[in-house]
Amino acid sequence: MNKIDNPPIVDWKQVLERPTQTVADIESTVVSVFTEVKQDGDSAIKKYTEKFDSVSLDSSIVSTAEINEAEELVSEELKKAIQLAKSNVETFHKAQKTEKVSVQTANGVDCWQEKRPIQKVGLYIPGGTAPLFSTILMLATPANIAGCKEIVLCSPPNKEGKINPAILYAANLCGVTKIYKVGGIQAIAAMTFGTETIPQVYKIFGPGNQFVTVAKQIATKYGVAIDMPAGPSELLVLADDTANAAFVASDLLSQAEHGTDSQVILVSTSKKMIAAVETEVEKQLAVLPRVEIATKAIENSKLIYIETIEIAMQLINEYAPEHFIVCVENEDYVLNTIENAGSVFIGNYTPESAGDYASGTNHTLPTNGYAKQYSGVNLDSFTKSITFQKISKQGIQKIGEAIELMADAEGLQAHKNAVTLRLNSLK
Amino acid sequence: MNKIDNPPIVDWKQVLERPTQTVADIESTVVSVFTEVKQDGDSAIKKYTEKFDSVSLDSSIVSTAEINEAEELVSEELKKAIQLAKSNVETFHKAQKTEKVSVQTANGVDCWQEKRPIQKVGLYIPGGTAPLFSTILMLATPANIAGCKEIVLCSPPNKEGKINPAILYAANLCGVTKIYKVGGIQAIAAMTFGTETIPQVYKIFGPGNQFVTVAKQIATKYGVAIDMPAGPSELLVLADDTANAAFVASDLLSQAEHGTDSQVILVSTSKKMIAAVETEVEKQLAVLPRVEIATKAIENSKLIYIETIEIAMQLINEYAPEHFIVCVENEDYVLNTIENAGSVFIGNYTPESAGDYASGTNHTLPTNGYAKQYSGVNLDSFTKSITFQKISKQGIQKIGEAIELMADAEGLQAHKNAVTLRLNSLK
Repeated sequence: MNKIDNPPIVDWKQVLERPTQTVADIESTVVSVFTEVKQDGDSAIKKYTEKFDSVSLDSSIVSTAEINEAEELVSEELKKAIQLAKSNVETFHKAQKTEKVSVQTANGVDCWQEKRPIQKVGLYIPGGTAPLFSTILMLATPANIAGCKEIVLCSPPNKEGKINPAILYAANLCGVTKIYKVGGIQAIAAMTFGTETIPQVYKIFGPGNQFVTVAKQIATKYGVAIDMPAGPSELLVLADDTANAAFVASDLLSQAEHGTDSQVILVSTSKKMIAAVETEVEKQLAVLPRVEIATKAIENSKLIYIETIEIAMQLINEYAPEHFIVCVENEDYVLNTIENAGSVFIGNYTPESAGDYASGTNHTLPTNGYAKQYSGVNLDSFTKSITFQKISKQGIQKIGEAIELMADAEGLQAHKNAVTLRLNSLK
Repeated sequence: MNKIDNPPIVDWKQVLERPTQTVADIESTVVSVFTEVKQDGDSAIKKYTEKFDSVSLDSSIVSTAEINEAEELVSEELKKAIQLAKSNVETFHKAQKTEKVSVQTANGVDCWQEKRPIQKVGLYIPGGTAPLFSTILMLATPANIAGCKEIVLCSPPNKEGKINPAILYAANLCGVTKIYKVGGIQAIAAMTFGTETIPQVYKIFGPGNQFVTVAKQIATKYGVAIDMPAGPSELLVLADDTANAAFVASDLLSQAEHGTDSQVILVSTSKKMIAAVETEVEKQLAVLPRVEIATKAIENSKLIYIETIEIAMQLINEYAPEHFIVCVENEDYVLNTIENAGSVFIGNYTPESAGDYASGTNHTLPTNGYAKQYSGVNLDSFTKSITFQKISKQGIQKIGEAIELMADAEGLQAHKNAVTLRLNSLK
């Protein structure tokens, strides 16, 4: 772990530098798969599933029989855990519903704003060793609350042509309307263009490897929206002497096990706490099953000593952490001062894992400093707002002249004329 | 004008096709300006201002003296018009403020969501013949309400090294914090990287030509967010026999004068109305100063006859118009059925110009079918939402086991361990 002692502001940029993302030159691969899927549809999907997932499928659709089978395979206790988590996610996201905003800006000029669901959304869930069924709760649940009509899920099949039962169980529980055994670039391409089998969607959500990340970027060129730009996951813990070193160490390690490029930072106003956390990390690291990944991420991690909490908060706002754990005496100061963060975890009994799975907040969050300008996924991610206006005869008489003057000053005579005609008709 | 009579659904895609956007191969130009601005800062800005705007400036900052001078140059009646419009925009966007969303998802598990301003935003306002000061009202006013600390505006200087007085007046009125005489690609690059003079921002808003559009796309590769993808402006009018043909024609023409690639569509359940509008368009077109531009756009425009309002609404939702004018008897049906639109104008006395300038709604709207998944600019465009959670000892005991089970099933032992350690400490 790298210890950094009271870095001067001029060094912050370097101190806070994130691990370099080696986005290899895979854009050409992505573009060629996109071109083929656009042109050949299902047959291109079949070809790439054979190539990348080593399995030949007659159909990519997951059948009701497969969903029922999956339900049998998931243990009752895991099902209950998933149900509890889903229920909390639902409670929190339902609370985010907003009413129609309606105002009369002038007599006879009624304006309002309403949110309407994005009708077709696509969710991508990676396959591989760890089946990320928790991400389905985070994406399908709010999509459902928002009222999206079509909620499509794509996830790669294993070599037996199957999807992990926990993924199918969660998808069915959370109201996914169609599930497809398609992964990687070809899944993103399918949802971008639509195929004979897989519907086109308007917005694509979900995590993925480098190929999926680049494919989502390319998808935006074809008019599809995406949840947010991607980057490696990261955690910043702010701790003083009121923190519990063992808990803090366990949080840093839970971030570190995500991948070797995970970013793990402890900021503390206490050198004693930094030393204690360091010792605890070594102790806990030894017994972890994903010890290799975690060790590499921990090697890149940073323990930063900062003299005062005021300076610490400036540094943290500059960094804009995806996950921000706060274990300090003066919580209120931190909560009032934090300007840039994805999700904030407060106190000694609020581990990041809670938000990853079951507290109710969303775990799809802005990484890479994007918390400065992007929100994590929330109910509004699945809606768009439309504005409306209705102007009466009295209303156009009230604001008509101002419109004429402004249109004229901008050199747009036809804009002015549309008002003049109406005003003249009322004379 | 192209008349289309009751097109079958299979033809809709072709009927609704938008004018091809000829995005020329200007990406390499954009990338080279970006590279130079990143490296050389202000001196690169000076160089490109000389090259593209044909003026050599010692400093790109607009001084207080220049702002004061501009205030003198704008007529009193235009100032009053701008003030009225600003006040309406302010009223509508202030009403969009949302309260903190706070829920207890389980006993001892408190979750909340708060919106915080994006601290630094950049607004781009094009120069040229028509000074688009109205766009400043639409961008700076909500930025100010949201609480953005730094609101930077860039606009190209004319050959005398000046910016149109109405732009400076509106910028100052709406709380822009810094104004720079920089245009085009170099302006977007400056706000992306920051220079010695111009601050780096987190999100860039505003319209522009092809070069600016591509520059904004490139900016997103460097971690800057943008308001939305751009495309030519468009209007769809839905009219039955209760509409006023002259008014409808004036609205179609006000859209057509924007540019030769503007998209203008009339959908009607009345052949009589279509014929009447066509006659009116020809009559009004003849006397417009921007007759050449408008004539070209009108040539590409479409008059679509559809038998029923139900089918018309399906077609309109498929098109997802930026501006949607509704002049029909059964307004309520349309308002309940519209799923995809940027802004909706209802009734015979609500021209698009009203929303362009002074009704209070925002005129920065999704074009090119993006209304299917993007909102127009609104108060939330200038904020991001942060989630918070605080879990008590009781709370972690309540949801801890579910987290352990799910983390275990996802193969993330350290995530599980962060909870186990806490649960054990409470035994």
